[in-house]
Amino acid sequence: MRDIKCVAALASRFSMLPGVGKKTALRYAYAVIDMSERDVDAFCEALKDVKQNVKLCKVCGNFTEDDVCEICKARSAKQICVVAYPKDVIAVENTGAFDGAYHVLHGTLSPMNNRTPDDLNIKSLLARLNGVEEVIIATNPDVEGEATAVYLARLIKPMGVKVTRIAQGISMGSELEYADSITLTQALGRRTAL
Amino acid sequence: MRDIKCVAALASRFSMLPGVGKKTALRYAYAVIDMSERDVDAFCEALKDVKQNVKLCKVCGNFTEDDVCEICKARSAKQICVVAYPKDVIAVENTGAFDGAYHVLHGTLSPMNNRTPDDLNIKSLLARLNGVEEVIIATNPDVEGEATAVYLARLIKPMGVKVTRIAQGISMGSELEYADSITLTQALGRRTAL
Repeated sequence: MRDIKCVAALASRFSMLPGVGKKTALRYAYAVIDMSERDVDAFCEALKDVKQNVKLCKVCGNFTEDDVCEICKARSAKQICVVAYPKDVIAVENTGAFDGAYHVLHGTLSPMNNRTPDDLNIKSLLARLNGVEEVIIATNPDVEGEATAVYLARLIKPMGVKVTRIAQGISMGSELEYADSITLTQALGRRTAL
Repeated sequence: MRDIKCVAALASRFSMLPGVGKKTALRYAYAVIDMSERDVDAFCEALKDVKQNVKLCKVCGNFTEDDVCEICKARSAKQICVVAYPKDVIAVENTGAFDGAYHVLHGTLSPMNNRTPDDLNIKSLLARLNGVEEVIIATNPDVEGEATAVYLARLIKPMGVKVTRIAQGISMGSELEYADSITLTQALGRRTAL
């Protein structure tokens, strides 16, 4: 039996979501049949609301419903944590260990994928450095993230602002035995005094 | 940082889907921001399409876009496989071991939950038994599924129709939806007379 056409169509929409395979998408689509019409309408409204109302903060580039995001409104920008994507802001916020401001680049430098500095949200970062004491670069510890960090450091340090990079090493709770050798080499090289 | 209001609202909609927790729902909601407006509109259309166009087959009670479902249109109803839910039709179809028709009860008897025979799609099953050679009862092998099977057998056997039950190759307490095709095929093959 083929799946019902409109159910299959909805499933293909669900499968555009991250981590949703064919089977899960179909399961979601069938679940929609059991929802009330009211719930389905509300679902649609919520989808459109997000697409229409979420924009980028004029200051930091993070997602917001206003012109300027809540973090930029509420916090001091003496320390700015630079991340690649909005989801990284959420990750850092969830630690509760940082109470400064953010700057979202919306990508990393990648010559392979034709992503140059002009494609990233860098100009507005340079424009807000007046009075900033430290820029913490929290891009991923991979080739592109490292390249972006080095590029930004070269750009910002001459402006008299301290530039730091989040520490790299063995992650908490992991086992030395299974760490890859690059990580382990870096953890050894960057060892700190106890 | 609180999540953006409309994103949180969309996440709460996603969390109504089966098996979607708070974190996954939020991940889906943020992914919608990155979709094109066109894709979001198409998503909405697909949601509403499913809710508006999927109805129950007048003959068997399975989901369909027409008055009568594709299976009822195409296949002989000499053998009718009775299941509790539409998702169970999909499970049996996926085995490829059955080429008869289905009947979907939309539930099982459950005195605990006040579900009596009147709440199930039983009348239309009795109405279509003329010329039927065998009714295979494929409800879940749990208390409610067994009770429903026994009830139906008592109802149908006096009408001169053979009533069988899928074999208890499926372990007690498990659910049809998650059974692997081989187990389900064996259960069909070893069905026993009631």
